[in-house]
Amino acid sequence: MSDTAALEPEYINEDHEALDEDYELTPAFVEKVVDAADDGDGIRLRSLLEDLHPADVADLMGFLTSEHRAVVVIWLPPELLAETLPELDDGIRDEVLERVTPGTLATALQELDSDDAAAVVEDLEDEQREAVLSAMPLLDRAAIESSLGYPEDTAGRLMQREVMAAPVFWTVGDTIDHVRSQQDELPELFFDIYVVDPLNKPVGGIPISWLLRAGRDMKLADLMEPVNEITVDQDQEEVAYIFEKYHLISAPVIDAAGRLVGQITVDDIVNIIQEENREDILRLAGVSDESRAAGVFGVVRSRIPWLIVNLGTAVFASLVIGLFEGELEALVSLAILMPVVASIGGNAGTQALTVAVRALASRELTSSNLLRIVSREVMVGLFNGGTIGALMAGVAWVWFGMPLLSLTIGLAVLINLVAASLAGTLIPVVLERLDRDPAVASPVFVTWITDSVGFLSFLGLAGLILL
Amino acid sequence: MSDTAALEPEYINEDHEALDEDYELTPAFVEKVVDAADDGDGIRLRSLLEDLHPADVADLMGFLTSEHRAVVVIWLPPELLAETLPELDDGIRDEVLERVTPGTLATALQELDSDDAAAVVEDLEDEQREAVLSAMPLLDRAAIESSLGYPEDTAGRLMQREVMAAPVFWTVGDTIDHVRSQQDELPELFFDIYVVDPLNKPVGGIPISWLLRAGRDMKLADLMEPVNEITVDQDQEEVAYIFEKYHLISAPVIDAAGRLVGQITVDDIVNIIQEENREDILRLAGVSDESRAAGVFGVVRSRIPWLIVNLGTAVFASLVIGLFEGELEALVSLAILMPVVASIGGNAGTQALTVAVRALASRELTSSNLLRIVSREVMVGLFNGGTIGALMAGVAWVWFGMPLLSLTIGLAVLINLVAASLAGTLIPVVLERLDRDPAVASPVFVTWITDSVGFLSFLGLAGLILL
Repeated sequence: MSDTAALEPEYINEDHEALDEDYELTPAFVEKVVDAADDGDGIRLRSLLEDLHPADVADLMGFLTSEHRAVVVIWLPPELLAETLPELDDGIRDEVLERVTPGTLATALQELDSDDAAAVVEDLEDEQREAVLSAMPLLDRAAIESSLGYPEDTAGRLMQREVMAAPVFWTVGDTIDHVRSQQDELPELFFDIYVVDPLNKPVGGIPISWLLRAGRDMKLADLMEPVNEITVDQDQEEVAYIFEKYHLISAPVIDAAGRLVGQITVDDIVNIIQEENREDILRLAGVSDESRAAGVFGVVRSRIPWLIVNLGTAVFASLVIGLFEGELEALVSLAILMPVVASIGGNAGTQALTVAVRALASRELTSSNLLRIVSREVMVGLFNGGTIGALMAGVAWVWFGMPLLSLTIGLAVLINLVAASLAGTLIPVVLERLDRDPAVASPVFVTWITDSVGFLSFLGLAGLILL
Repeated sequence: MSDTAALEPEYINEDHEALDEDYELTPAFVEKVVDAADDGDGIRLRSLLEDLHPADVADLMGFLTSEHRAVVVIWLPPELLAETLPELDDGIRDEVLERVTPGTLATALQELDSDDAAAVVEDLEDEQREAVLSAMPLLDRAAIESSLGYPEDTAGRLMQREVMAAPVFWTVGDTIDHVRSQQDELPELFFDIYVVDPLNKPVGGIPISWLLRAGRDMKLADLMEPVNEITVDQDQEEVAYIFEKYHLISAPVIDAAGRLVGQITVDDIVNIIQEENREDILRLAGVSDESRAAGVFGVVRSRIPWLIVNLGTAVFASLVIGLFEGELEALVSLAILMPVVASIGGNAGTQALTVAVRALASRELTSSNLLRIVSREVMVGLFNGGTIGALMAGVAWVWFGMPLLSLTIGLAVLINLVAASLAGTLIPVVLERLDRDPAVASPVFVTWITDSVGFLSFLGLAGLILL
């Protein structure tokens, strides 16, 4: 225990110290948990943890070592463990799940909505999954199995089956009475009521604040507005796009026959948006899925593939340089300056491709405006290439005092920046058309082109102009 | 008009063609709008536009040229114009606002919640702002001015003043009766009721689905749960973090004295999360704020600053190379191979820094685990450097048949990958400590280090080992 912690009076309520004013766990609190885990002091651990929000327990797990997590899991109250599971990083969740008995897990999962419970069960190994499911009541088990029947990353997997539906002929009063009498069947939280026809097909939706506001005699049919229906097989990225675009709080999910089978709420969508953004940003940097909890080899595995691919493109660029051995031997200044052309081209390419990948993801770059965007990029490449090329030509002139060398590098920069703009925009578009994720493969191709064009144009022009 | 459009029968309802099944505007629909705008056919324009969702009108604007937008703005119904304004990209919004008279704008803004109206007014030029505000009713004007009194990017600016508050001594029945009688004072949509004490300080919150479910005699004090209060001066990024972490749908905003002054809802938060992610991803790529609507010079302005900085670091790297003129003249293979070391180092640095920037943003990298993360990165650098270095040494051996040259490049790759891991992790952390945005400046510093260390280690080792 650190000195400052030792000096703290014992009577200060520990809950007040867990979080600082930014809702971050304080180092002092994390240390207390570590100390209690080291001492195997379960009573103290439980008193430290029991009043935390599940999201804070999940954060805490991320700051602990694997050994300390093992102790904490044992002492977490079961309901809190259940609510913490959906909040954990995948890597940490896998580890925690291995340490919990199927019986405890089966009890814990019954506390969760069907979508959250299914998200936990899908991560279990086959054997453990079987054991957990068979220890659950039949109805909960059926709900989870039906959820897992939908492909990963679809609306079916994301939705909760609990939903508030009302027949179209009901009044506001009927609906409120129904809610009061049917408490147990309903979702714990809901934000919209879905109005359905006799075939259970949604015909409208009503935000519950409208329901509160209306008189009891008002007919639902007069209050409802059209809803954006989600189909069970829609991709979660598509669902997130619809929620974001139309500012939805919840939306009904329908099956292939158009019948209401569940709902998706915006809190799940926030997670998906963050997850998709995280993936995009890491993929653009050449990092495949990397969990915070990953050990050294987890991180190595997530980063080395793109480094190996990059080794290939870098060697290719060296082969291009090798074509100009004569020029390099004749004039060593070429060797000194040539990385500048490739480096600036690489950066301009990264700019263009990042803008293009974002625009594709947010559907701002479509066939309706492709031509206009591409011609704008070419103009930008010409202008930036001209400016940066002129600057670099000036630097080279001052440094080497050779006007033709300056001309060569200026032109090479101009050519490479136009190539960078074009490649950075077109490569993501082509990959998207081929149904590939543009964030994954674009950087490789663009770097390849800017390196090769950079060395080829600079050394090639040097051969023509200088030697 | 294109051939396919000309062949379509006139009687098909145009609304059904505006969006395809992915909720994207169809090129055919955009073309119809363009044709109508070209013909100056206002009646047809209005019939095309009037049933669109404001978010779709905003998308449409993004696909039009500035000239066509000018025509469309004139024919948009005023209420639809009002609701479209908050959905527009900043660049396009500025342009649209210049084309609308203060009177029309003042009428339109009264249709919006106070936060959305303020967001539009803040973008106006001083003169136009004065004209619009003085054309508005006093109460609406006061609401907007009070909102604009809070600094940009704070909770005060983000919140809406309309909020559903109930005294702590009320019952569920009192609350529902109040909602039914006070319709006009309340927000159009609300998701939680805030329970306040006599000083108007929030003491709890109740999701309205709980209110529906409870009996009329239930006391609010028995139903409410603690709420996460937001203070007016909190940064919007901080607010988004709290919403995301605790899965909030809405939250009360309090002033410095702790009194309830407004609420923030999750739909605003989704926009902020997307905006912050967009900024992060573009900044990492060296692009400052770039609007889709920007013309060539807008794009140039957003990209050229980082290219100029990059020119500086690239010239610095060339100066490093210049130190080894003798070595390069003695052995041209050095010139051929040296870009490989810098390129792989640059990529490894980008990987490490992107992971670190993300971890800082999501608060997964804090003082509690910094040491552990940094030592993991060093191990990753050693392992990846060893692997890629060995591969490159092999390639160089096959290519040039010089064992010592292979050894040199292998070692240089190893050294540079460790440097990349360290710089990529520590530079963002240091920038964050200095209260700088790590996404903006980290890439410059990291590239600088990987370029310099790359050339220095390869050419320096070559001098020692080879020559």
